[in-house]
Amino acid sequence: MAKRTARSKKRVYYFGKTKTEGKKEMRELLGGKGANLAEMTSIGLPVPPGFTITTETCAEFNDKGGKLPAGLMDEVRKNVKALEKETKKQFGSSENPLLVSVRSGAAVSMPGMMDTVLNLGLNDAACEGLANLSGNPRFALDAYRRLINMFGDVVMGVDHHHFEAEFDRIKKQYRAKEDTDLEPAGLAELVESYKRVYHKYTGEKFPQDPLLQLEKAISAVFSSWNIPRAIRYRQINEITGLLGTAVNVQTMVFGNMGDDSGTGVAFTRDPSTGKNEFYGEFLVNAQGEDVVAGIRTPLPVAKMAKWKPKVYKQLLTIKNRLEKHYRDVQDLEFTIERDQLFILQTRNGKRTGAAAVKIACDMVKEKLITQREGVLRVPPNDLNQLLLPSFDQKAKRTVLTIGLPASPGAAVGKLAFTAEDAADRAHQNEPVLLVRRETSPEDVEGMHASQGILTSTGGMTSHAAVVARGWGKPCVCGAGEITIDEKKQTITVAGKTYGRNDVISIDGSTGEVMAGSVPTREPSLGGDFSTLMKWTDKHRKLGIRTNADTPADAKRARDFGAQGIGLCRTEHMFFEGDRILAMREMILSENETDRRKALKKLLPFQRKDFVGIFTAMKGYPVTVRLLDPPLHEFLPHDAKSQQELAKRLGVTPAAVKSRVAQLHEVNPMLGHRGCRLAVTYPEILEMQVTAIVEATISCKKKKVDAQPEIMIPLIGTAKELSVLREFTLDVIKKVKAAKKYTGRLNIPVGTMIEIPRAALTADQVAEHADFFSFGTNDLTQMTFGYSRDDVSNFLPDYLEQEILEKDPFQSLDTVGVGQLVETGVSSGRSVDAKLKCGICGEHGGDPASINFCHGVGLDYVSCSPFRVPVARLAAAQAAISNGR
Amino acid sequence: MAKRTARSKKRVYYFGKTKTEGKKEMRELLGGKGANLAEMTSIGLPVPPGFTITTETCAEFNDKGGKLPAGLMDEVRKNVKALEKETKKQFGSSENPLLVSVRSGAAVSMPGMMDTVLNLGLNDAACEGLANLSGNPRFALDAYRRLINMFGDVVMGVDHHHFEAEFDRIKKQYRAKEDTDLEPAGLAELVESYKRVYHKYTGEKFPQDPLLQLEKAISAVFSSWNIPRAIRYRQINEITGLLGTAVNVQTMVFGNMGDDSGTGVAFTRDPSTGKNEFYGEFLVNAQGEDVVAGIRTPLPVAKMAKWKPKVYKQLLTIKNRLEKHYRDVQDLEFTIERDQLFILQTRNGKRTGAAAVKIACDMVKEKLITQREGVLRVPPNDLNQLLLPSFDQKAKRTVLTIGLPASPGAAVGKLAFTAEDAADRAHQNEPVLLVRRETSPEDVEGMHASQGILTSTGGMTSHAAVVARGWGKPCVCGAGEITIDEKKQTITVAGKTYGRNDVISIDGSTGEVMAGSVPTREPSLGGDFSTLMKWTDKHRKLGIRTNADTPADAKRARDFGAQGIGLCRTEHMFFEGDRILAMREMILSENETDRRKALKKLLPFQRKDFVGIFTAMKGYPVTVRLLDPPLHEFLPHDAKSQQELAKRLGVTPAAVKSRVAQLHEVNPMLGHRGCRLAVTYPEILEMQVTAIVEATISCKKKKVDAQPEIMIPLIGTAKELSVLREFTLDVIKKVKAAKKYTGRLNIPVGTMIEIPRAALTADQVAEHADFFSFGTNDLTQMTFGYSRDDVSNFLPDYLEQEILEKDPFQSLDTVGVGQLVETGVSSGRSVDAKLKCGICGEHGGDPASINFCHGVGLDYVSCSPFRVPVARLAAAQAAISNGR
Repeated sequence: MAKRTARSKKRVYYFGKTKTEGKKEMRELLGGKGANLAEMTSIGLPVPPGFTITTETCAEFNDKGGKLPAGLMDEVRKNVKALEKETKKQFGSSENPLLVSVRSGAAVSMPGMMDTVLNLGLNDAACEGLANLSGNPRFALDAYRRLINMFGDVVMGVDHHHFEAEFDRIKKQYRAKEDTDLEPAGLAELVESYKRVYHKYTGEKFPQDPLLQLEKAISAVFSSWNIPRAIRYRQINEITGLLGTAVNVQTMVFGNMGDDSGTGVAFTRDPSTGKNEFYGEFLVNAQGEDVVAGIRTPLPVAKMAKWKPKVYKQLLTIKNRLEKHYRDVQDLEFTIERDQLFILQTRNGKRTGAAAVKIACDMVKEKLITQREGVLRVPPNDLNQLLLPSFDQKAKRTVLTIGLPASPGAAVGKLAFTAEDAADRAHQNEPVLLVRRETSPEDVEGMHASQGILTSTGGMTSHAAVVARGWGKPCVCGAGEITIDEKKQTITVAGKTYGRNDVISIDGSTGEVMAGSVPTREPSLGGDFSTLMKWTDKHRKLGIRTNADTPADAKRARDFGAQGIGLCRTEHMFFEGDRILAMREMILSENETDRRKALKKLLPFQRKDFVGIFTAMKGYPVTVRLLDPPLHEFLPHDAKSQQELAKRLGVTPAAVKSRVAQLHEVNPMLGHRGCRLAVTYPEILEMQVTAIVEATISCKKKKVDAQPEIMIPLIGTAKELSVLREFTLDVIKKVKAAKKYTGRLNIPVGTMIEIPRAALTADQVAEHADFFSFGTNDLTQMTFGYSRDDVSNFLPDYLEQEILEKDPFQSLDTVGVGQLVETGVSSGRSVDAKLKCGICGEHGGDPASINFCHGVGLDYVSCSPFRVPVARLAAAQAAISNGR
Repeated sequence: MAKRTARSKKRVYYFGKTKTEGKKEMRELLGGKGANLAEMTSIGLPVPPGFTITTETCAEFNDKGGKLPAGLMDEVRKNVKALEKETKKQFGSSENPLLVSVRSGAAVSMPGMMDTVLNLGLNDAACEGLANLSGNPRFALDAYRRLINMFGDVVMGVDHHHFEAEFDRIKKQYRAKEDTDLEPAGLAELVESYKRVYHKYTGEKFPQDPLLQLEKAISAVFSSWNIPRAIRYRQINEITGLLGTAVNVQTMVFGNMGDDSGTGVAFTRDPSTGKNEFYGEFLVNAQGEDVVAGIRTPLPVAKMAKWKPKVYKQLLTIKNRLEKHYRDVQDLEFTIERDQLFILQTRNGKRTGAAAVKIACDMVKEKLITQREGVLRVPPNDLNQLLLPSFDQKAKRTVLTIGLPASPGAAVGKLAFTAEDAADRAHQNEPVLLVRRETSPEDVEGMHASQGILTSTGGMTSHAAVVARGWGKPCVCGAGEITIDEKKQTITVAGKTYGRNDVISIDGSTGEVMAGSVPTREPSLGGDFSTLMKWTDKHRKLGIRTNADTPADAKRARDFGAQGIGLCRTEHMFFEGDRILAMREMILSENETDRRKALKKLLPFQRKDFVGIFTAMKGYPVTVRLLDPPLHEFLPHDAKSQQELAKRLGVTPAAVKSRVAQLHEVNPMLGHRGCRLAVTYPEILEMQVTAIVEATISCKKKKVDAQPEIMIPLIGTAKELSVLREFTLDVIKKVKAAKKYTGRLNIPVGTMIEIPRAALTADQVAEHADFFSFGTNDLTQMTFGYSRDDVSNFLPDYLEQEILEKDPFQSLDTVGVGQLVETGVSSGRSVDAKLKCGICGEHGGDPASINFCHGVGLDYVSCSPFRVPVARLAAAQAAISNGR
């Protein structure tokens, strides 16, 4: 951690009409919310004044084991004074009391993950003051009971249910049906009863000193940075490197002062489709959290035009101003207190992948942003959503009900009624839909693990909707016709009941909830998507190839824009039908002669496969990797299959069993595989190279431009490659002669760099290689000493304890593994400046890794067909961001 | 391979009275033999003239796929002319024919490994000429038949047995018992019969043109560089980096011209004990190979004094001159042709370890060499022989017979009658003695695999003796009372018969062959050995530590000069008696509480172990490595043991089985082990650190200077180490407080660098480490991607095809793995200039690796107790050789 000269640093930044100390560029220090509150205040928007405590203070707080740094509260008190002066209200005043909200706000938005306290500053005196001032004792008492409840829950850890129980008791006593039906007398009793609950469970009285309330609330918000759900959220969203959260203390305004008040959240454009339409919801006579929590179903924001035309017009003006100022879609919170509009928050709006693409294209057209900015605006991984299938429009569907189309996409799964159950079953590869009345931040893990989310209450901006959209996960909200029985684990809708083992389909684009499994269809990718893709191709420097072993995969990847195959694994070709039998025969052979006999049977299969793939990829290179896995992977391991095999091959079961046992390896990952097989059994390499060359000649004769490249895997020493390369070139020559082919056959012979030693000695290896392809999967295994098959035993602990920031198999470890890649490239090119270098590990489809690959000067990345558009976009962003 | 401007280079170097073009410094180019022949000629010794074809020519020959380079034979013919002029003999002359020997000779001696042709130049006419000249037709015919046999065998690949069969047939026909009994008529018939054999198996007539003979013989010698036994010999002796062999063409002199002729080999000092005594053997009326092949048992060289006093005196003078000139023990070959002495070869004499030590010490005392040279003269690995046990002098021994004490040491084993059988059984860990009439170069692999070698014919300089001494392997030669029945696989001696499953003991220092297994005793290491060791300590810069887990090992290593423990593995402590039960209980625990309960039982055992080891090593550091292996290594894997364990632990066998299955790993080497265990189960680390600290305090209280160092294994990221280091320091503090210990406890906390990523990020890791210890075993596994447990499936092919020069687990791969060590050291020290760095892999006992460790500036190496003297010597040699 960087050392801070803590004492000299400013910890609190004021925003208000008298002065504003922050600005939007200070997001690291003030958090996104704090920076934007300052910015909005500066440009003259109606923002309630307040102040922000820096994220650095949070880091200090954590360093000190959860203590506020000395001197902080002095600074806070000074700012409270300034606030009192500007608002002409006083903390705890029985005449004109100052109430504030205390909210978290990190540099990266983590909606709902951390704690908030509203109405802070209320005490017995101030409650009276608020009642007098507003002329609405009901409102004042309601605010007071909310504070005690929230403060007790969030700051002091009193279980919310204790308050709920009292509320229910008193509502019953006063025969109130809804919360809002409770009269002032009942509310007054409720306040006293809440104070007793508070006293009982905390051992102290509810603090009457607003500054003490504030101090405790600040501590609580800082502490909430490290509560499990917040940590988990950062992990899922790969948010790292932050100091902590800022704390925003802001004058309260009230959307619940009566029917001339209200509150809402809105997006400057539709975050689901990207359409340029003001999009949002509001509730009359409500506080902000009522909208977000999804307890009441709100009204579309357009309806404000009728309710308060003047305020609505003002809001539209502000909306336009905000989008222009920030040059991006804004997600804003507003409150109307007695016809007066306040903007409480603005931030860049989360959006679906489809919306991101449309908004980027539209804004470029509108000249609001440049084309380069447009390319940067779409998170590459969000394209996945566009590439995912949707429901087949022609398929029969039994629609049970229609909810809100909260996050587009098609999801099919069995019902899970708790987040835990959803997570457990999903980890066992069971596709589930999470069904909840509403979701809360505790549910994020189960939500993430589900195919989709279905809620019976809550609107388009409810927790479920916002979170699901962020992930591009299908979500239908507010499907109010559904009755959920959590205990029985059933839902009832349209007269039918469905349980844990029943399958439901939801369409997040239409809000439809359907019985059974509705068939899906491939996405069609035109319009804005292809515009964006064209832009990416204009900007990127990296070539994009794909990992594909079949003509079908090759074709799909090519349609997605792949410019060749970077990794064609040949072992997959040995598993089908008769091939596996010939393969096993080869492995069980006692000598070279028998091995050659079996290999002869495999040759025509291989050749046919290659003809198919070369044809599908014609005009583009196809890098064929020679046999890689250890031979025992091809053998059956149970007694029954061994007996069957023995029978078919005409040997004894004991012979099969013994050969399987003989081939067993303690650490197969580090065993007899890759080029090591070619060293001991050169006839396997001979067969494969023969198949490649014969396939190429056969293509060329049909005028199909086959461009094979032969890749020798698992090279660890230059000598290995030199021996096998010579042998390969020999075979090519012999096949050419045997086939009497006189045309040019330019077949490069290169290697994978996937063993640390190969990267460390890349200059020597490069002397014998026409190209390098970094196999970062194995390179990661060996550089870390992590077996991919076993890492789940400890990796979760490593991520939880933040020993690792990311799973290194998902995102390339640029420090360690990346160092080897960098060394490999530069040292290889020191020998052959034009050495073609690519990457074919799974990292080839990961945007952060692609950015790294661009940086070290690779020629191409290769990824799975569905990741090709993601890679194209990431490559373009890397080029633009690095100014190249 | 380095490019050569072949055409311009001189390929042939003449030596003789008229001119001598080589010298002893040209060993790389002319081979050891060629360089020495030139040198001896220069200093006026009686060397038959000849010429040497360079090793570079051999490389050319191999590059061209086995063709002599153009122009070579022109140069050869020119030199033959010069030779004819100097000797006044002519190739193929029927009056005074020139005969030559054609011998191999690489820069490093490989005795008997490559091919030789003698008597070359003989044809029908020359045979007549030789008969006339010597007045001895028998001798001429005998030389001729030898040539046809040898040329046929060596050059043309005709099986030796075809010639043998003819010899036997004609001996029978002429009723000759011994070879020498055959009269000229019989020999003449034999020559004709050999020619027919030659014709039959080669399809061509025996060449009558001496120059054609010569050309073919040169090719054959060059080819023999790459015959399997030569490759194998270079592997075993780790001879790498040579261009090839030179070819020496030298005028023949004849030790078999009658009873005034003879031949012998001798050492200037006793190569077995090192005593300064002329040591050797000779045969009257014999050719040189008769001595080396061990077919006739020769006489001690001292007996020459009686036979030919004048020649003997001349030989003694030459011997003294040679040793002074070469400043080392010389191994010389000589021939007496009709009372005239010729020196045919000299080279530095191979010697046993004991002899090497004595000779080095004596020569320093004699001021023949400096102390630094003395240290350099002893090959470190040869010390192993001195450290090996010898037979207990007090033990009862049944001596069956006494042979020649050819190579000292005690060997006990079952009898193996072929080299193949010896190798096979030895590889299955069965100790065997190889018993042969005589050995030949084909036997080297089996000889190497045996405990010792016993032959029934052959002298102290026979093949078996020379090779065995080179390896320090016990050998008894020429035990003529033993009758070997190879077919029945028995030996008969002293009226008893022993077979494949009977155990015999041989004493290579006395020549005794004994029945059964005679007990052995530890070596005593005084005198010259300790003188040499004192010298090494004076010169070396590297500290020497040992790898030891028990007080006994610690004490032994200390006695050998270890200055601390570099690796104390704690897992070995968990296997004994009750400990394994507690360990298994811990592993089977379902939760932390139960784990802690089991760990509590282990704590006193660990503490006691540490007290013992710290006490044995008092005053020296002891680096304790925390638990490293995956937990499943401690669990029983068969059903029966699992049932027993379940019973003892009071759980169901199914529970045990399921936990074992759960802990199974696909690649345990890359799995949940090392510090990863400490991350998931910090309570294990806590118990171990507690035991270390309590043991230290307990020692300190008894005034025992315990110096523990805590080593955290398998670190891959700096964060891992920082977290575990903090935790370790916390535990130390807590234990100190609990024990109310107020003294200073300085316990460094460091890490092993054994994961490539740790080496690559050593600067970051060093921020949290008090020391680095390079675990080069695992580092080699991961850098190469070789599982040590599985490498035997392909490593032999790699060594045979010379893809690898050496087994990287035996000798550190300085290029790849070494690069990581170097990076690790320099990058670690960039953060902490005084960072202590050592090595604790098995490479710590390998001289070549130690030289590397010295070079990269390590502070110490750590090796097994028995390797400590080797390491001390290697470290001193590294310092001297590197001029530091």
